[in-house]
Amino acid sequence: MKKLELQNTDLFTSLNDDEIEDLHRGGLKVIQKKDGYRFSMDAVLLANFITVKRNERVADLGTGCGVIPLIIAFRNPTAIITAVEMDETAGRMAGESVEMNDLSDQITIVVKDIKDLGNAYRSGSFDVVTTNPPYGRLNSGRINPDPKKAAARHEISGTLDDFLQCASYLLKYRGRLALVYPAAMLADLIVRLREMNLEPKRMQTVYTGKNRKAKLVLMEAVKGGGRELELLQPLYIYDNHGNYSKEFEAMYR
Amino acid sequence: MKKLELQNTDLFTSLNDDEIEDLHRGGLKVIQKKDGYRFSMDAVLLANFITVKRNERVADLGTGCGVIPLIIAFRNPTAIITAVEMDETAGRMAGESVEMNDLSDQITIVVKDIKDLGNAYRSGSFDVVTTNPPYGRLNSGRINPDPKKAAARHEISGTLDDFLQCASYLLKYRGRLALVYPAAMLADLIVRLREMNLEPKRMQTVYTGKNRKAKLVLMEAVKGGGRELELLQPLYIYDNHGNYSKEFEAMYR
Repeated sequence: MKKLELQNTDLFTSLNDDEIEDLHRGGLKVIQKKDGYRFSMDAVLLANFITVKRNERVADLGTGCGVIPLIIAFRNPTAIITAVEMDETAGRMAGESVEMNDLSDQITIVVKDIKDLGNAYRSGSFDVVTTNPPYGRLNSGRINPDPKKAAARHEISGTLDDFLQCASYLLKYRGRLALVYPAAMLADLIVRLREMNLEPKRMQTVYTGKNRKAKLVLMEAVKGGGRELELLQPLYIYDNHGNYSKEFEAMYR
Repeated sequence: MKKLELQNTDLFTSLNDDEIEDLHRGGLKVIQKKDGYRFSMDAVLLANFITVKRNERVADLGTGCGVIPLIIAFRNPTAIITAVEMDETAGRMAGESVEMNDLSDQITIVVKDIKDLGNAYRSGSFDVVTTNPPYGRLNSGRINPDPKKAAARHEISGTLDDFLQCASYLLKYRGRLALVYPAAMLADLIVRLREMNLEPKRMQTVYTGKNRKAKLVLMEAVKGGGRELELLQPLYIYDNHGNYSKEFEAMYR
């Protein structure tokens, strides 16, 4: 199988309708569709941002093709992960990726709308929740090039609220939520996190290069956490020469 | 007079009880007390962050020894600036600095509690408001080394609310507020700005060095502004060799 070439846009190997991408993590592979359910850079950034402790229970909301739980499981062999996706096709592919990587002991795929999780899980059932909520993802062609339109609240924040509400329900007291979101919407994100009693505690800003405004923020919030936010050093996707930064490339190794 | 040596803690020249600091801006000078009312790095950062357009009316709330209006006036010869300080001694020194720098046409010092400005000015009287609200300033010995204590809300946020309320009152619709605040309290700041209809629009994170979490945030908010926040490239005070960064040193030239 062709290896992941980070500087090449043609990253994928065809396999009937689906494709398999090699994540370069000791053989970790992800199945995804050519036209949809593709994981994005955002998901990889998020999976590298969150820290998971021994034996923690993790829920990934809107898991898509499952790249976040796959990376977390790979890095944290004791983590028990529930990955929720409402789309059946994406859920099927995520399940196949779990099998293919022999991670069925660690990852359970649940095909369900996140709004219905209240019937399936008790409040406080998880130590960690991760989510890359739908807002149009970086480098996926789905983000609106007009930041004002992209930031239009009526559509996007409604969705964000659903995800935050679900995260707040699922997390135990002092449990951690990690998410990735467009930098332009940081104010919305912080206001809504606090409304849900999810206190912003650790944040990293993601820039593509040294001369551009930030693209994304990675945020960890703690349910019932104290009011003190740690702003980490920024993360750059590209270095000064237009190549992927060492920091970013390291995430794929 | 001794020139400002940025890498020296003994920066000041005695002048009876007061001292005069040379700001290195074509001769711009600031009078301040040896023990109190000293301007800090924060004020210089803020004065360099805000953009002021032709003939704009600017109010600086809690001006202390007046360093922010002095720098703004120096850089923007058409700006008309009102600098408010409740402490009479600090206000007197600010007034003397204005005279000494021959900026009386541009800067008016008003000795008043910001809570009483409603009687003195109509709502919407200013295009720009700047403030370095009291929270314990970087490198002034007044910041609490324990971030949890420093972030204790009961004392600090009460003060912040007064400043934001005053700024919101004084600004015209679409007017700009610029302030500097501890990075650890960014969530509080954003929540409170939005509560006052001051929408965060432009933000710069200030780091001392490349291996530390952020110290300060510089924030521009717009009264009634749209919901889209621009996160600028971070600002570093020191370079990799422990010297002041070129970017920071340039602020003193």
